[in-house]
Amino acid sequence: MIHKLALIGFGTVGQGLAEILLDKADTLRDTIGFEAQIVAISDLLKGAVYHPDGLDIATLLDVIKKTGNLDDYPDQLGLERGWDSLKTIQETNADSIVEVSYTDIETGQPAIDHCRAAFTSGKHAVMSNKGPVALAYEELSRLAEENNVRFGFEGTVMSGTPAIRMPLTALTGTDIREARGIFNGTTNYILTEMEKGLDYEVALQQAQQLGYAEADPTADVEGYDAMGKVVILANVIMGQPLKKSDVPCKGISHLTSADIEQATREGKRWKLIGRVKKDENGISGSVAPEMIPMTDPLASIMGATNAITYESDLAGPITLVGAGAGRVETGFSILIDLINIARGQI
Amino acid sequence: MIHKLALIGFGTVGQGLAEILLDKADTLRDTIGFEAQIVAISDLLKGAVYHPDGLDIATLLDVIKKTGNLDDYPDQLGLERGWDSLKTIQETNADSIVEVSYTDIETGQPAIDHCRAAFTSGKHAVMSNKGPVALAYEELSRLAEENNVRFGFEGTVMSGTPAIRMPLTALTGTDIREARGIFNGTTNYILTEMEKGLDYEVALQQAQQLGYAEADPTADVEGYDAMGKVVILANVIMGQPLKKSDVPCKGISHLTSADIEQATREGKRWKLIGRVKKDENGISGSVAPEMIPMTDPLASIMGATNAITYESDLAGPITLVGAGAGRVETGFSILIDLINIARGQI
Repeated sequence: MIHKLALIGFGTVGQGLAEILLDKADTLRDTIGFEAQIVAISDLLKGAVYHPDGLDIATLLDVIKKTGNLDDYPDQLGLERGWDSLKTIQETNADSIVEVSYTDIETGQPAIDHCRAAFTSGKHAVMSNKGPVALAYEELSRLAEENNVRFGFEGTVMSGTPAIRMPLTALTGTDIREARGIFNGTTNYILTEMEKGLDYEVALQQAQQLGYAEADPTADVEGYDAMGKVVILANVIMGQPLKKSDVPCKGISHLTSADIEQATREGKRWKLIGRVKKDENGISGSVAPEMIPMTDPLASIMGATNAITYESDLAGPITLVGAGAGRVETGFSILIDLINIARGQI
Repeated sequence: MIHKLALIGFGTVGQGLAEILLDKADTLRDTIGFEAQIVAISDLLKGAVYHPDGLDIATLLDVIKKTGNLDDYPDQLGLERGWDSLKTIQETNADSIVEVSYTDIETGQPAIDHCRAAFTSGKHAVMSNKGPVALAYEELSRLAEENNVRFGFEGTVMSGTPAIRMPLTALTGTDIREARGIFNGTTNYILTEMEKGLDYEVALQQAQQLGYAEADPTADVEGYDAMGKVVILANVIMGQPLKKSDVPCKGISHLTSADIEQATREGKRWKLIGRVKKDENGISGSVAPEMIPMTDPLASIMGATNAITYESDLAGPITLVGAGAGRVETGFSILIDLINIARGQI
């Protein structure tokens, strides 16, 4: 059965997904029986198109590349234009909503409202944006369950690296006592460069030039991005309603070359560690730079790579290392959720 | 619904599983709705008992600890004794067969026959023994499919670390071009100790004293154990019918202190790498010690730990690090297969 998609937003992640769906359509159909169709796109700035029988992906990508405006998508019998995000979510024939709109990190809006609309319309919602999961997991997961649809967000913690799906499929039944990791590639890149001798400011500029860090790097370097991921892990993997305000958060902007040298002298390495821990006092989360020993698997994670270690009672420590960002990787994080929704798997 | 188990063999792995089922019965029922019951055990040396309403796990473990003989399990109305493995597989009311018998690594027997009997009797079969998967994957997976039952073997590659389930659930849809890893904890321990200055022979003796290496260490140190895992990955993850005889295999017994020093001088580290690779020439596998650069995530894997790196087109390199052996970990590898069978998940 063809899985019909409506994309809310058509920026980097949405286009990345569209490219994968175009390039791999035959392989996905022939090897795993997955067939997807984009029936609608609604983007606040780039316009909106909808056709119940599907849009042509190559044409969509071509139009966006050439004019940046979906109004230039060619006319066709039955084509609708200009539907806003809520109408697109509620009134198209999509099976799944791909929520990749530009979202406020403080409020999680409009993504949270998009999820609510999707679930109450009986549609699955899949996203890589942290907002809805970090700020409204309890409400949204219950709403999805009540409407018998799925809430997919693999990409919110480590992009296409399965920080969420791995424990849900392969560690269930264990008591996961701790998850700790390097959840922010930008800061790990900066720390790696500082270890090579650069000052913080120079390393940050370099990260900005390479596109790892934003012009305003606050969310990365002060640990807020990692904090959101800690909150997601607490809620989804540990099943505990931890909130952002519960998580003490310290970034790396105060670290100096002298701090780096001290770690090296002690045979250690600074890493910005996000941690969520469950013990007799309940759940707790934190984000802070830590000097970790070189024997810790997280110590060898260099550059923009991410990693997570799960400690459990039955499986011992298990570490997962991989990309934490990237156009193709994040597009894939959406695809893997859609594939598993279509095949009825976690 | 209660999932009924028959254990064929009651050695370390079978007892490890029984302990977990006993200790975690309430948690597994309350948190994930999983309830298992051991209805039968048939062990060539320790005897056999069967009761369609279930055996008492604490008593089973107690009897084995005290006398080593299941004949000492107390009498009870409806209890059957002395059923051999095939009768136990075919005629008990078990839903799943836990195949943990002592199996010949050359022929994979009697485990392969046990799997055949399980599948044709409409029962799932779960195991940590490599034989059936490494030697007869094509036949057995087809037989399981035809009979609408499951063939579970997470534990065959990296014990409870999900080297198999992770790619099947989280990387499907990607083109996995290569899997390479450290699949043998004994040799990785020996190499780690050699790097500390021990000779090969001394490091091997130390591994034997710690119980990592067998009295006859051939299967580990000559790479045959890793070779079986390479074959499993080729068949299961790459979908290619690679055989053991297709895999060139070199162990670590020829490595000298001079070799270790050379690697250190070059900023590298020896690791026994199992590799399976897919390119325009088809599939190929190999096992050999390699000097890998310290920037490779596999270089930092020390001691008896295992690790695997998957290279794919959409997700970038993803590395999974964890235990590759252990009583609890391997017992868990059986449990996680059973949980996923019971909940209808991969």
